Amino acid sequence: MNEFNLIRNYFETSSYQRRDVKVGIGDDAAITQIPDGQYLATTTDTLLESVHFLEGSAPNAIAHKSLAVNLSDLAAMGAEPAWINLSLSIPSADELWLSEFSNKIRELTEYFSIQLIGGDTVKGDLAITITAQGFVPPDSILTRSSAKPGDWIFVTGTLGDAAAGLDVLLGKLDVHDLTHKNALVNRHYYPTPRVLAGQTLRRLASSCIDISDGLLQDMQHVLNASSVGAVLNLDQLPISKALGKSIPHLEQALEYACTGGDDYELLFTVPEVHRVSVESAMASYNIPCTCIGQVTGAQGKLELRLNDEAYALSGKQSTGFQHF
Amino acid sequence: MNEFNLIRNYFETSSYQRRDVKVGIGDDAAITQIPDGQYLATTTDTLLESVHFLEGSAPNAIAHKSLAVNLSDLAAMGAEPAWINLSLSIPSADELWLSEFSNKIRELTEYFSIQLIGGDTVKGDLAITITAQGFVPPDSILTRSSAKPGDWIFVTGTLGDAAAGLDVLLGKLDVHDLTHKNALVNRHYYPTPRVLAGQTLRRLASSCIDISDGLLQDMQHVLNASSVGAVLNLDQLPISKALGKSIPHLEQALEYACTGGDDYELLFTVPEVHRVSVESAMASYNIPCTCIGQVTGAQGKLELRLNDEAYALSGKQSTGFQHF
Repeated sequence: MNEFNLIRNYFETSSYQRRDVKVGIGDDAAITQIPDGQYLATTTDTLLESVHFLEGSAPNAIAHKSLAVNLSDLAAMGAEPAWINLSLSIPSADELWLSEFSNKIRELTEYFSIQLIGGDTVKGDLAITITAQGFVPPDSILTRSSAKPGDWIFVTGTLGDAAAGLDVLLGKLDVHDLTHKNALVNRHYYPTPRVLAGQTLRRLASSCIDISDGLLQDMQHVLNASSVGAVLNLDQLPISKALGKSIPHLEQALEYACTGGDDYELLFTVPEVHRVSVESAMASYNIPCTCIGQVTGAQGKLELRLNDEAYALSGKQSTGFQHF
Repeated sequence: MNEFNLIRNYFETSSYQRRDVKVGIGDDAAITQIPDGQYLATTTDTLLESVHFLEGSAPNAIAHKSLAVNLSDLAAMGAEPAWINLSLSIPSADELWLSEFSNKIRELTEYFSIQLIGGDTVKGDLAITITAQGFVPPDSILTRSSAKPGDWIFVTGTLGDAAAGLDVLLGKLDVHDLTHKNALVNRHYYPTPRVLAGQTLRRLASSCIDISDGLLQDMQHVLNASSVGAVLNLDQLPISKALGKSIPHLEQALEYACTGGDDYELLFTVPEVHRVSVESAMASYNIPCTCIGQVTGAQGKLELRLNDEAYALSGKQSTGFQHF
């Protein structure tokens, strides 16, 4: 089977169809139309087998994560996702694998009303690169660099579940309760990009980032980009029932919540004047969010507190995911 | 060295800077502004070591080709390139390699006035995925699907050089003249995307594609997409002096010109009414182009002629590059 049939069979119709796509898959480039007065948001992420997902992961989980990490990046900018490009490197044209993978892509494009507009298929070690594009109004871009001293620090959802789920799969963490175990493992396999939350935070949050490398590492990115500091109250960190019940020691649960990667929750800062609006808006969409600290003027400095006392993590992974 | 320092050191400043980039490298996504009334063109290509370039190729050649193939796709749509995203998978953070690679990216972004707006760096086998974005006026999109019977078939530049250059490197083709040898090898390593030609063909060409998989295979894509046929006069194929002088047998030279991949010339069709305009416009920009045949109504059928006689290629590679 050559590349062209491969693409045609699995991906040409593997997508929700949008009216703003003028030329889709099958030509040298896709041609699309941005709404008047909107800016374009673009992000790219590559996922490699054994680095970003476990060898032998289900094709639908790989598809889900590849798309979710990119939509999460758009969400962190407050952008509305529109189109994706998919570059797929696979060892062979395995029809079952391609069918499951492309079915999940189709399902997610329908769920998020986005269109697969192009890509590339090459023969090589399993790797997926997705480029996601979306729109954002010029006055509503959420960056990492505008947090101000005094702003409140929030996160969506719960923290540490995906990392705990990975440890369950790796046999490093033993969880007896099957419901909790499945909940953690599913957070690892099927992260939920906070697309609606990101758009809700437009004009309300002063900065935003998605938590992919762990709370502390991603918080530090915001501090560095904004030239501010932060105090995080670890007792306020949102810990899921699944994680809390599965981990006997508080310190280990905090370790997961602080340094565990792949949660894809949003970490954002909110000026006092917008705090109530943010909490109301998020509540009206049923998006859980929790205030976990406050921005300070101590440039680059991240202070951790537990029950109002200074606290230091003792775990080995305290710096988060290292790419090299 | 972690990913963030790696990106910061080599790529954050590794680009021409454009005023339409509102948020560049360093946030969750790039934010850019499309000119009013223009459509967005987007294309993605992945290059793997040992598949798309020889193992041990110079970093600057890899950078050049990775960018050129994407700009060539934009050119084939008549688009003006604007921004690129780069996803780089490398086995280790080799500083010399990264320095050479990023220097070439910077040089080319300056040459083409495009900006590197984001990307990803992962640890893995050497692979480069670039997503290129550009603009095209709504009434000027060049697709593969609008060729009409009677249209003239043109190509830019010369054909077969890159494939012959590759064979020189692989020891399959012996070229004694050093000037010719270097010319062929350089066409393999440093293809020239026909960016200006693509924009010049707007509103003049009826269809356009870039030749990446070989003339015959890419011609067939146009025929299939446009539901037409074609007659190609092989005696009219533009053969460079380097290729013509290096290949003793005409048939072998034609084989390279018909099936050799990686030339990245444009193959386009022109209605009779625009033929003179195309030839004048291309001449005014010093872009060589040659009429090599004519579109017919014989749906999907590609006829080859040599000196007005039917001709069949005898080589093994007569179907062009096979991806799987």
